[in-house]
Amino acid sequence: MKASKTGEFGLIDRIIEEIKKVEPGDWDSLISGIGDDAALIEFKSKYQLATTDSLIEDIHFEMNFLDWEALGWKALAVNLSDIAAMGGTPKYALVSLNLPASTDFDDVVRLYRGMLQLAKASGTIISGGNISRAEKLAVHVTAVGEAAGKSKTLLRGGARNGDLIAVTGILGGAAAALETPYRSINIDRQDAEALKKAFWRPQPRLQAGKVMVKHGIRCAIDISDGLLADLSHILEASGTGARIEASKIPVNPAAAATCGTKSLELALTGGEDYELLFTGKSGAIKKVAIDAGCPVTVIGKMTRHAGKLEVIDGRGRRMNFEGGGWRHF
Amino acid sequence: MKASKTGEFGLIDRIIEEIKKVEPGDWDSLISGIGDDAALIEFKSKYQLATTDSLIEDIHFEMNFLDWEALGWKALAVNLSDIAAMGGTPKYALVSLNLPASTDFDDVVRLYRGMLQLAKASGTIISGGNISRAEKLAVHVTAVGEAAGKSKTLLRGGARNGDLIAVTGILGGAAAALETPYRSINIDRQDAEALKKAFWRPQPRLQAGKVMVKHGIRCAIDISDGLLADLSHILEASGTGARIEASKIPVNPAAAATCGTKSLELALTGGEDYELLFTGKSGAIKKVAIDAGCPVTVIGKMTRHAGKLEVIDGRGRRMNFEGGGWRHF
Repeated sequence: MKASKTGEFGLIDRIIEEIKKVEPGDWDSLISGIGDDAALIEFKSKYQLATTDSLIEDIHFEMNFLDWEALGWKALAVNLSDIAAMGGTPKYALVSLNLPASTDFDDVVRLYRGMLQLAKASGTIISGGNISRAEKLAVHVTAVGEAAGKSKTLLRGGARNGDLIAVTGILGGAAAALETPYRSINIDRQDAEALKKAFWRPQPRLQAGKVMVKHGIRCAIDISDGLLADLSHILEASGTGARIEASKIPVNPAAAATCGTKSLELALTGGEDYELLFTGKSGAIKKVAIDAGCPVTVIGKMTRHAGKLEVIDGRGRRMNFEGGGWRHF
Repeated sequence: MKASKTGEFGLIDRIIEEIKKVEPGDWDSLISGIGDDAALIEFKSKYQLATTDSLIEDIHFEMNFLDWEALGWKALAVNLSDIAAMGGTPKYALVSLNLPASTDFDDVVRLYRGMLQLAKASGTIISGGNISRAEKLAVHVTAVGEAAGKSKTLLRGGARNGDLIAVTGILGGAAAALETPYRSINIDRQDAEALKKAFWRPQPRLQAGKVMVKHGIRCAIDISDGLLADLSHILEASGTGARIEASKIPVNPAAAATCGTKSLELALTGGEDYELLFTGKSGAIKKVAIDAGCPVTVIGKMTRHAGKLEVIDGRGRRMNFEGGGWRHF
C-alpha cells in the first residue's frame, strides 16, 4: 500500500493501531493524543526539558538496504540522548514524518515499531505528530522530558578545572560502520553486527544521566559530533581546558578489529556514538560507574587553560588533529 | 554568507543574537535555552499541549519570490493555530531547520525575524532547535503550550446534536492566493496584498480559543485542510452530522473580487486559512463573538445524522462535492 494511494488519514490510523499496542509506564498522563489538533498531557514536574533532532535521507542515512525499524529507533534515540545528557527523564515525543510518494505503508509501520520499542523501554509516550509528503524521507522528532530540579541538570558549562573527564560505553563503532563496508564477507560477522548496532541502535544513556545527577555531577554532553568536538563545546561553555589520554579511550573492539589503528581516530572524532561525556570529582565518577548500567571510563582531566584541548599518546607525546586526521608532532 | 562556509555553529550564534533581541512575556521560565543538549524550561501548569507541523519547499511553498520572514511567521503560526484550536496558551517552540548548502545566512536570520515577530506577539519562547543540511528547505516547528485544565480544552469530539457551527475570521483567502497570480498587474493591488497576507501571515486565533474555553465551548478545530474536510473530522470524532448554509460562509472579499463565484468553493474546501471552526449553544457563541478579537460567524448546525455533511445553497438546495469541485444536484 503506497502512501499516495490511501492518503494521510489511512496511514495515521495504521500508526495509531501500532501505538496502541504499546503501553509505556506513564500512559495515563496522555489525556488526548494523536487525532486532535494538539496532544494534551498531564505533566507533574515543574522543570521541563525539550529537544528536537532529525534524520534525513542522503544526509544521515541512505535508502539502500534501509532498515526502517532501526531508523525509527535511532530517530527517537538521538533525541532521548539529549534528554539523558541533561540528566532528565523523557516523558513524550512528537514525530513529524516526511514521506516520498513512493513510500510503502508497511515500511512506515516498521519505522513506528522500531521507535515504539525504544519508547516502551524508556517510558516515552509517542503523543502526536504529522505527516507531510516530501521528495526525501526524513524523520523529525521532538522529545519533552522532566528534570529533577532547576539546578539538578547536567550542563555544558558545569565543568571545573581539576575535574576528571569520563565517558560511558565504548566509542568509534558508529563511525567504523560508515568507514567499513560492514556487509562485506571479509569482515567477521560478529564485528559487522556490532558495528551495525552501534550505528543504528544507539542506547540513550538515560539511567547513567540520572545517576550522574544523583551523585552530584554537574556537566555532561552527549557525543553526537565526535568526542573532541563535543568536548570543545564543554570547554567553551565552562571556560576550561582539557587533557585527554588517548590510551584510555574505550575504543569499540569491533572498530579496532575492522579499522585497525584508525579506530582511535574514529573514537575521538567520528561522532554518532551517543555516549555521554561528563566531568566531575573522582569519588562521584566512581559512584556513577557502579550505578550507570554501562561501562564508565576516565579518559582525562579538565585544566585551567581556557579553550586548550590536548590529546596525549601512550608515551606522553601530544597528538594533533589536522585536516580531518590525527598525527603525531 | 553561505551556510556551507561557516558551518552550523556560526549560524546558530547569529540566530541566538536575533532571539536575544526579543523578550517574550514569560522569558524567565526559560532556564537554559539554545546551546545545551536540551532546553530547560520552568512550566507552571499541570496540563500541557504539544503539536508539531512542517513547511517544506515544493510541497508547502516555492523558492521563487520566497519571503523568508513570512516563511518564519507561518511556520510558527500553523503550530500556534493548533494550540489555539485546543483553547490553550503557547509557552515555547523548538525549530528544526533543513537548509540547502546554498542557503544565505541573512535569509535564515530573516526567517527567524519573522518567526520572532509572532513569538513576541504570542508570548512564545523559541527555546531550541537544530539545523541539518538537506536538499530542500524545510522548517519543522514543535510548539508546547498549556491548557487551563483537563476538561477545559476544545476537542474534536466535543460537538453535540443541535449545536450551532461557527467560524472565526474570513475564509478562502489562502486558497485564492494559490489560485490567482497575485503578483499579476491585472489584480487590484489591495486585493493582491490581502490574499498574500491570508496565505503567508495567518493569525493564530489564540485569544478566540481561550475565550471559547471561558464561555463553555467544548469543540473546535483549526481550518488547515479546508472547512469541509476539517468539519468532517469533527463529525467523525463527535458522532454527529452537520448542515452548512453556503450563503452564510464569510468569504474573503479579496478572494471574491479575484476568483468570482469560485471563491465560495475555495472558502469551503481550500484550506490553510487557519481560522477556528467551533460548535456550541447560541448564547455561548454570542459571548465568544464579543471577546474573540476577530469576526465570528454562525454558518450552520450540528445534526444527529452521524457522518452526514450537507451544504445548502441560498434556495435550500443541496450542494455536492465531486471530484474536487462543488456542483448543484
